[in-house]
Amino acid sequence: MEKPLKYAVFGGGSWATAIVKMLCENLDEVGWYMRSVYTKEHLLKEQHNPNYLSSVEFHLEQLKISNNINEIADWADVMFFVIPSAFIHSELEKLTIDISNKTIVSAVKGIMPESGLLVGEHFHEFYNLPYENIAVIAGPCHAEEVALERLSYLTISCSETDKAKQIADSLASDYIKTKVSDDVIGIEYAVMLKNIYAIAAGIAHGLGYGDNFQSVLMSNSIREMNRFIKKRHKMKRNINNSAYLGDLLVTGYSVFSRNRMFGNMIGKGYTVKSAQMEMSMIAEGYYATKSAHMLYERNNKRTRIPIINAVYEILYEGKNPKKVFKKLTDKLN
Amino acid sequence: MEKPLKYAVFGGGSWATAIVKMLCENLDEVGWYMRSVYTKEHLLKEQHNPNYLSSVEFHLEQLKISNNINEIADWADVMFFVIPSAFIHSELEKLTIDISNKTIVSAVKGIMPESGLLVGEHFHEFYNLPYENIAVIAGPCHAEEVALERLSYLTISCSETDKAKQIADSLASDYIKTKVSDDVIGIEYAVMLKNIYAIAAGIAHGLGYGDNFQSVLMSNSIREMNRFIKKRHKMKRNINNSAYLGDLLVTGYSVFSRNRMFGNMIGKGYTVKSAQMEMSMIAEGYYATKSAHMLYERNNKRTRIPIINAVYEILYEGKNPKKVFKKLTDKLN
Repeated sequence: MEKPLKYAVFGGGSWATAIVKMLCENLDEVGWYMRSVYTKEHLLKEQHNPNYLSSVEFHLEQLKISNNINEIADWADVMFFVIPSAFIHSELEKLTIDISNKTIVSAVKGIMPESGLLVGEHFHEFYNLPYENIAVIAGPCHAEEVALERLSYLTISCSETDKAKQIADSLASDYIKTKVSDDVIGIEYAVMLKNIYAIAAGIAHGLGYGDNFQSVLMSNSIREMNRFIKKRHKMKRNINNSAYLGDLLVTGYSVFSRNRMFGNMIGKGYTVKSAQMEMSMIAEGYYATKSAHMLYERNNKRTRIPIINAVYEILYEGKNPKKVFKKLTDKLN
Repeated sequence: MEKPLKYAVFGGGSWATAIVKMLCENLDEVGWYMRSVYTKEHLLKEQHNPNYLSSVEFHLEQLKISNNINEIADWADVMFFVIPSAFIHSELEKLTIDISNKTIVSAVKGIMPESGLLVGEHFHEFYNLPYENIAVIAGPCHAEEVALERLSYLTISCSETDKAKQIADSLASDYIKTKVSDDVIGIEYAVMLKNIYAIAAGIAHGLGYGDNFQSVLMSNSIREMNRFIKKRHKMKRNINNSAYLGDLLVTGYSVFSRNRMFGNMIGKGYTVKSAQMEMSMIAEGYYATKSAHMLYERNNKRTRIPIINAVYEILYEGKNPKKVFKKLTDKLN
């Protein structure tokens, strides 16, 4: 009999915690690396993450928790990376062991800020992972609803369908349905871009635009996302599948989304700095906006992306949100 | 100089009232037929509709109000029909004058319940209107936000683009942006189908499904709508345009939508009858469900429409919402 694969999660946030919970429904042991010593100690003592999804109780005998990234990486066969793109570089710098024969599942919602590489491309280039060992996971899935065991759907994408299926099976349960895909690149971009559109939705709301406009904005966002992704990686995909449109909607319509909340504060007149100080954590979409804009410029601005550009002008060029959105409304339809 | 066209609205509900308001931004005189003598008297005395959008004040010198459908029809060149599909037949029976040289703009959210004809087809067949005289108007547009003059986008569709443009211009203003299209049939179906999906969203919410599932449901709804419309009328259309996806979203995500509210009560355990009694008006989507299902059967069930079928089973076959949705979740992805 084949030895069962060992799965581990790298990250201590809410989405990481949700993934650990899903894996625990199926596996005897789950590896869990987190940076914070305090979180680890609290978990070992109180059986829940003190900062995120604290209602979820873990059985400690199922968890192999460590603050040492190499210890968990060495142990695991399949590694879920659930670290914000802004911190992924410094975390990966600690990784010294050879992981070229392991499988990576990216749950990083962005690209490597320094290089503009997708997380998958980064692992391929710097860790010698073949592309068939690289997968990506997409929602639509608020971690908070996983904690409540509310029915959610996940898409696992990998160029090797069997591998995608295997990962999907490790996550599926009564309340998690899974689907596989082979559009690794498209889904990596979609997961990143949706957060920019959620910021745009928040700005619009903060400025006083209503539900009619919000739906026009979302309708334009999915078309813009489609153009953007097509330019990066052309293949047959239905942009209205849950991993793209569904994920955009759950983020863009959620009043709990950090990205939407951040945008809302900007729309209400906070500066970028004061909005960031007000929130405990910088919204993923803030970095994603810069990355997407950089790719757009490298690409000689050949794709029409008025929404991303509007958000970029507000967040990085200090332009007036009200004026920028007034102009944007003429470019939407 | 050509004589300017005369525009009139037929109907006394909230969407009719909103369209009159939009036309009043541009025209010296707007015709307005409504069935209710009380509403007419109240309007003439108090300058607002007593039942809908009562905050909107009209200038009486701009309005030509009548309870006589033939008087307004005779006067008008362009006729907006804004009457629920359940009442359109009995209203049209009163129409005795020849309207074959007029332009019809349908804002009826459904098909003729008796014949299964689209409203446009009905006017063509029974009133000898050529197809180029038939237009349709679509949102996404809650009437309530028109009352508040919040930026909204409309799509006017007509096989003759100049005519669509002319109607669009009569509606455009500071807070209304317009777009033209030539997909009359597709948009008529989209406007009808969205209300069924809004009922489905309401049922899901009433049953306790969360935001993750709602976004999966909307992502599946737009794909189902695309399949449905394609089967009825094949042409090049982007289903993610505001008239299709945007309109679906504003209805499916709105807590004010009558259709979603109706579904929510069903999900919470009300019978269809008691939910209808609780609401002052029967939700459009209730009839749309029957019509869509009838077209599906006539078409030998060749399109995969699991969401419409689930709603049909609950509303018309008395099946248990919880069980029907449990099965439905396996058909979505």
